[in-house]
Amino acid sequence: MADSKLNIDRSALEQLLQKRFFLAPSFEIYEGIKGLYDFGPTGTALQQNLISMWRQHFVIEESMLEVDCSILTPAKVLETSGHVAKFADWMCRDTVTHDFCRADHLVEEALEARLEGDALARKLAGASIAGDGGAGAEPSGKKSKKKGGAAGAAAVQLEDAVAKEYRDILAQIDNYDGDALGELITRFDLRNPETGNTVTAPMPFNLMFNTSIGPTGTLKGYLRPETAQGQFMNFSRLLEFNNQKMPFASAMVGRSFRNEISPRQGILRVREFTMAEIEHYVDPENKSHPRFDEVAELKLPLLRASRQMEGSTEPAQMAIGDAVSQGIINNQTLGYFLGRIYLYLMKIGIRADLLRFRQHMGNEMAHYACDCWDAEIKTSHGWVECVGCADRSAYDLTKHAEATKRKLCVQEHLPEPIVKEMLVCEPNSKVFGPRLRRAAKPVQDHLLALPEDDLAALRDALARDGRAVVTLTGTAADGDHEITADMVSIERQTITEHVRVYTPNVIEPSFGIGRILYALVEHSYNVRANDVNRGVFSFNAQVAPFKCLVLPLSNNACFAKPLLEAARQLRSAGVPARIDDAASASIGRRYARNDELGTPYAITVDFQTAKDNTVTLRERDTTNQIRGPQDEMVRVVKDLVAGYTTWSDVLSRYELIDTTALENDA
Amino acid sequence: MADSKLNIDRSALEQLLQKRFFLAPSFEIYEGIKGLYDFGPTGTALQQNLISMWRQHFVIEESMLEVDCSILTPAKVLETSGHVAKFADWMCRDTVTHDFCRADHLVEEALEARLEGDALARKLAGASIAGDGGAGAEPSGKKSKKKGGAAGAAAVQLEDAVAKEYRDILAQIDNYDGDALGELITRFDLRNPETGNTVTAPMPFNLMFNTSIGPTGTLKGYLRPETAQGQFMNFSRLLEFNNQKMPFASAMVGRSFRNEISPRQGILRVREFTMAEIEHYVDPENKSHPRFDEVAELKLPLLRASRQMEGSTEPAQMAIGDAVSQGIINNQTLGYFLGRIYLYLMKIGIRADLLRFRQHMGNEMAHYACDCWDAEIKTSHGWVECVGCADRSAYDLTKHAEATKRKLCVQEHLPEPIVKEMLVCEPNSKVFGPRLRRAAKPVQDHLLALPEDDLAALRDALARDGRAVVTLTGTAADGDHEITADMVSIERQTITEHVRVYTPNVIEPSFGIGRILYALVEHSYNVRANDVNRGVFSFNAQVAPFKCLVLPLSNNACFAKPLLEAARQLRSAGVPARIDDAASASIGRRYARNDELGTPYAITVDFQTAKDNTVTLRERDTTNQIRGPQDEMVRVVKDLVAGYTTWSDVLSRYELIDTTALENDA
Repeated sequence: MADSKLNIDRSALEQLLQKRFFLAPSFEIYEGIKGLYDFGPTGTALQQNLISMWRQHFVIEESMLEVDCSILTPAKVLETSGHVAKFADWMCRDTVTHDFCRADHLVEEALEARLEGDALARKLAGASIAGDGGAGAEPSGKKSKKKGGAAGAAAVQLEDAVAKEYRDILAQIDNYDGDALGELITRFDLRNPETGNTVTAPMPFNLMFNTSIGPTGTLKGYLRPETAQGQFMNFSRLLEFNNQKMPFASAMVGRSFRNEISPRQGILRVREFTMAEIEHYVDPENKSHPRFDEVAELKLPLLRASRQMEGSTEPAQMAIGDAVSQGIINNQTLGYFLGRIYLYLMKIGIRADLLRFRQHMGNEMAHYACDCWDAEIKTSHGWVECVGCADRSAYDLTKHAEATKRKLCVQEHLPEPIVKEMLVCEPNSKVFGPRLRRAAKPVQDHLLALPEDDLAALRDALARDGRAVVTLTGTAADGDHEITADMVSIERQTITEHVRVYTPNVIEPSFGIGRILYALVEHSYNVRANDVNRGVFSFNAQVAPFKCLVLPLSNNACFAKPLLEAARQLRSAGVPARIDDAASASIGRRYARNDELGTPYAITVDFQTAKDNTVTLRERDTTNQIRGPQDEMVRVVKDLVAGYTTWSDVLSRYELIDTTALENDA
Repeated sequence: MADSKLNIDRSALEQLLQKRFFLAPSFEIYEGIKGLYDFGPTGTALQQNLISMWRQHFVIEESMLEVDCSILTPAKVLETSGHVAKFADWMCRDTVTHDFCRADHLVEEALEARLEGDALARKLAGASIAGDGGAGAEPSGKKSKKKGGAAGAAAVQLEDAVAKEYRDILAQIDNYDGDALGELITRFDLRNPETGNTVTAPMPFNLMFNTSIGPTGTLKGYLRPETAQGQFMNFSRLLEFNNQKMPFASAMVGRSFRNEISPRQGILRVREFTMAEIEHYVDPENKSHPRFDEVAELKLPLLRASRQMEGSTEPAQMAIGDAVSQGIINNQTLGYFLGRIYLYLMKIGIRADLLRFRQHMGNEMAHYACDCWDAEIKTSHGWVECVGCADRSAYDLTKHAEATKRKLCVQEHLPEPIVKEMLVCEPNSKVFGPRLRRAAKPVQDHLLALPEDDLAALRDALARDGRAVVTLTGTAADGDHEITADMVSIERQTITEHVRVYTPNVIEPSFGIGRILYALVEHSYNVRANDVNRGVFSFNAQVAPFKCLVLPLSNNACFAKPLLEAARQLRSAGVPARIDDAASASIGRRYARNDELGTPYAITVDFQTAKDNTVTLRERDTTNQIRGPQDEMVRVVKDLVAGYTTWSDVLSRYELIDTTALENDA
C-alpha cells in the first residue's frame, strides 16, 4: 500500500491545468496573490459535478437539511466557538529576512532534508567502499539547490539513533504544539530551508481574516473559517423544521477562508476554498446508526493514533464493523460516515490504493473535537487531508447556549415516563430571605444545583448538628454561609419525568472540495505513449467537465448544418455538447485537445455524413471509434453518460473503424 | 400597469418565511446583524433551482464560459477598476444620536411622508367640507408612528407647486449626487425620519469590506463587490480557451459583499448576497447579435431615462426590435439580453404586470457604464432593481491593461488585408539624439503618437519654414523643442494590415439572486379563503423547493412500508420526495404545512393502499385529488414535474375524489 506510486511529471501536469484552464492563479495579470486560485470553465464544471454528486450521495440520499449561511460572522460568535483564541498556526520569522514560515513545515522540511542527506551519504559510502574513493560528500545537486541554505545537511550521514529519532518525530509531526516545535528547532538547530538563517521561537498566528461591519467601524467581524458555525446558529430552527425528530443532519456547501501564513502546494493550501460540511446531530447516549449494516462489512485502510505515536505510517485494512466493535472507531455513526466518505471518493474516481483514514493524535485534535479521522489521499505532494470526520461532541451547542442563554437542546418525549426516587432540596424562602438577605439567592441557587451525594451529606449534617456551612465561589456572595435546619427541607421524593432534555452531539464530515478535485486530477492524469505532450484525463463520464465533443472533420462549409444538429440533439438529450470547429487545427489536434479536457466522447461529422447521415463516435481512453446514424449515436452517448451502458458493451454492437491516420494527425 | 397591486399582508408573509425556514436573520441567537440572512432548507432549495434554471437558460443555452473566481481581491485591482475611489453611497449622521443613514433614502422617505401628509390633509379637508368639522389634522396613526420624528409632516397640505416639485424629485431620486442631496436636505429642512433630528451634510462612504491578506498585515484587500472583476482578470485565458473566437461570454455565480450603511427591507438590501453575472465581450464596431431575431418581436415595458427626467414613472410597451432601431436601446446585443432576461423572469414565475425595464439616468450610471437598463420588479417594498444590464464599454479592460501593461485585447485576423494610405513619421535618430539629448526620446514618442491632422500640419510647417516647435506636457522633458526638417521624414505611405487589434466592449447582465427570489416569493404568495393562516406558495414545479410530499393518512404502522416504497420510487424517478409522517399532526394540517412550502404535489398512503396498492395524488393550487396505482401516480408526478403533462390534462384522465373532510381537518 504505502509503496503505491503516482508516476507524475507534476510540472507538465500543472502547465496542462493552466493551458486547459482548469485553474490559474487569481489576479495573475497583477502578479497574483499567494494562495488564491480561480477555476476556469473546465475546473468550474469539474467542481460543479463533484458538488452535485456529493449532494446526491449525502444530502438527497439521507434527506439532510441543506442550508446556506452568511460568510461574514460577528466576532462574538467565533469568540464563543473558541476560534478567536485557538484557531491559529505556529509561525516563525527568519531572523535576517524577517520572512514568515510555518513552524511545523519548517521542522518537517529540515528533518526530511537531513534524512535525505543521510540516505545519500550512506549510498555514497557504500559506493565508495565498493569502488573507488569517489567524490564522497558532495551535496545532492538538485535537492540541495532547492533547499537553499539547508544544503549543508546534504550527504551527511546521521547516527542511527538520530535518524530514528527524526523519523519518529516526522511520524507525529502534527502532534507538536508551539513550545514543542520551538524546542525541536533549538535542539536540532533547524534553519529556514529557504535561506539557511535561524528563526525566532514559534508564535501563534490566528488564521481568520477580519473586517468590520457597518459604517461605524466598531462591529468587528471575521470571514468564516468553516461553514459549521452557521449551521449551529440555526440548530433550533432546523430541529423544528425536522418536526423535532432526532437524529438528523444539516449540510452546507460554500466558501470558507483561512489566512495561511505561507501558502504553497498549488490549490492544496489556499486562503479561500469551497467546503462541503455535514453536521449530524445524535443522541450522546445512542450513537448507533440505522443504516450502519450497509457499511459494516466494508474494509477501510485505517491508521490509528496509537500506531502513529509508535512511529508507524502504515494503515491496516479493517472492516468498519470490527473497528467500531473493538473501539478503534468511537461509534457507529462515525463509522457509518467513514464508510460513506469512502464510497463517495470511489464513485468520483479516487484510487483506493492511494487513500487512507488517519486518526488524529491527542494534541493534533481541533479544540472542539473528541475523536477525528481524516481521509487522506496520496498525491505527488504526499498524503493530503481531503475529508475530516470529527466527533465534535456537544462542544459548540453547549458553548453557544451558555453565551446566548438560548436553549440549544432536544426535548425528547419519553414513550414511558421515568419514575425515580431522588433527594429533593426545597428552600424555605420565608426564613431564607430575612436571614441571608443579599446572599439568599446565590445560596439557594447553590443548594438547588448540589449533586445527590452532597445533598445527602448536607441533610445528615443538618440532622446531626442543626446547622451546616456552605462555601460559595464565583458568585455575588462568595464565602461561607451558615444554614440551619429550618431553612431547607431535604427529602427523598418520587419524581416522574415525561421529557428527557439533552444537548445533541455532532458528528461532522467536512470535505475540502478543492483538495479532492486536485487529488482526482492527479489520479486521472496519464500520458499516451510516454509523450508528455499527449496528456489525457481519464475522468468517468459523470465527473468529466464536458461530456461530448462535437466536431467537423475540417472547415468545409458542408459540415456546419449537421454539426449544429448533432449539438442540438445532444443538448435536448440533456448532454451539453462542446463544439470544436476551430478551422486552423487538424482533427487529431482537436481530439488531443479534448483528451486534455477529459472529455470522454466525441462525435465527428465527416463527408460520409452528407451521404448517409452517419457520424463517428470516439471514446477517449481507448481512442476507439465506431460509426452509426447520427440520432442513434446521440442516444448511445446519452446512455453512456447516464451509466446505462458501457463502452465495451457498445463495442460489442458496432464495428470498430480504423482511425490511426486521424489520431496521428495531431 | 402602474395600478397593478400586490395584495399582500407582508408581516404575515415574513412570519411564514421564517416559520417554514425559507430564511432567517443570521446569528439570530446572538441578536443578529443587520443585513445578513441565512437560507434554510426551503430557501436553499429554491435558490438552487433558480440558479440551475439560470445556468440552463443562459450558460448552457449560449455556451458561455463559466468561471469561479476569488472573493478576496487585492486593493490594486479595485483601485484600477475605480471601486476604491467611486464605489460609495452618500451618508448623513444624525446630529444628536450620531446614527448613520443613507442620504438618498432620507430624502426619499422624508418627501414621501410629506406627500402622504398632503394627501391626508386634502382628504380631511374634503371630508370636513362635506360633513362635520371632524378631528382634522390628526397624524395618520400607524404611518406616523413608523416615521417617528417625521410625524410633524403628516396631514399638512402642501402648495400644488411644492407637491409637484417633490414628485419630480422622487421620480429621479437616483440621479442626485451627494452635493445635490445635501442641497435638498437644506432647502427643504429634511430630518432623520427615525428621530426628527437634523443631519450632517452627505459624505461618501465606500461600500467595500476591507481586510488584510497574509501574516504581515501590509497587503490590503477587499471582499469583491461584484463578480465582474474576476472575470476581467481572466479575459486573455478565456479568449484563448474560446479558440480566439469573438464574440463570447463568461459567467459566474457567487457571493459578493457590500457594506450597506443602514440595511432594511429584509433580504432586498443585504451586506452579503449571491449574484449571477454575465460578461459578454463584443466588437465595439459591431454590437449586432446573431440571435437577435429571436427576441426582436418581444414587447417589453420600457421606462426611458428621458421620461424619468420629465417626472414620469410610466413604462411604455415596445418591441425590442423597434427600441433598438429607434436608438432607445443602444444596440442589438443589449436588446437581446433584455429579451433573454425577460424570458428568464417569466419562466421562473415573475408576474409580467409587475415588471418594468428602467433606463439609468446620466448621474445614476455606475462609473464604468455607458448605457444601463434595470429589470425592476414590483414588490410590497415598491419597485426593486433585480437585474442590471449595463454596457460597460471597454472601460474595465482598458484600465486593467494600462495598470498591468498586459494586452487585454483581441487580434482579429482580417480575411482580406486592409490596404490604406497614411502619413508616416520616421525620425532620423542620427540627428535626433545628438541634437535633443535627454529630450530625444520623449520628443520622438510625441511625434510617433501624433494624429494624422497634426502630422500633416507639422509636415507643412517643416516644408515651409524648415523648422517647427513642438510642446511636450506630462513627460520627462516638458516644454518647447525645436524640430528641423532634417530630423524627420513625414511621408504618405501605403500600409497593409493583416490583423485588426481592438479592446472588446462588455455587455453585462447582472442578477441579484436573493432579490429575484424574494420578488418571486411575493408574486407566488396567496392565502386560501382570505385566511392568513392558510398561506400557499404557488411555485411552478421546476422552481418549487420540494416537488412531492409523501405522507401516511395517520400514524398507523401499516402505512410505513408503502410510504417508504413510494418515496423510493419517486427518488429513483429523479423526483426527490419529502416525507411528512409527523404522527401528531392531522392529514389536513400536513397538507397545509406543505402548501406553505409551495410543494406542488402530494401522494397519500391510506387504508385502501393496503388493499389495492392505490394511492391518492393531490395538487396544491386546486387541492384536487385523484386516485390510482402507486407506480402510475409516481409516473404522473414525474411527468408533471418534467413539464410533459399538466394537471388539467391529468384531471381529464382520472376521476376527482372528494376530499373536503381531509382538507378541513387542518
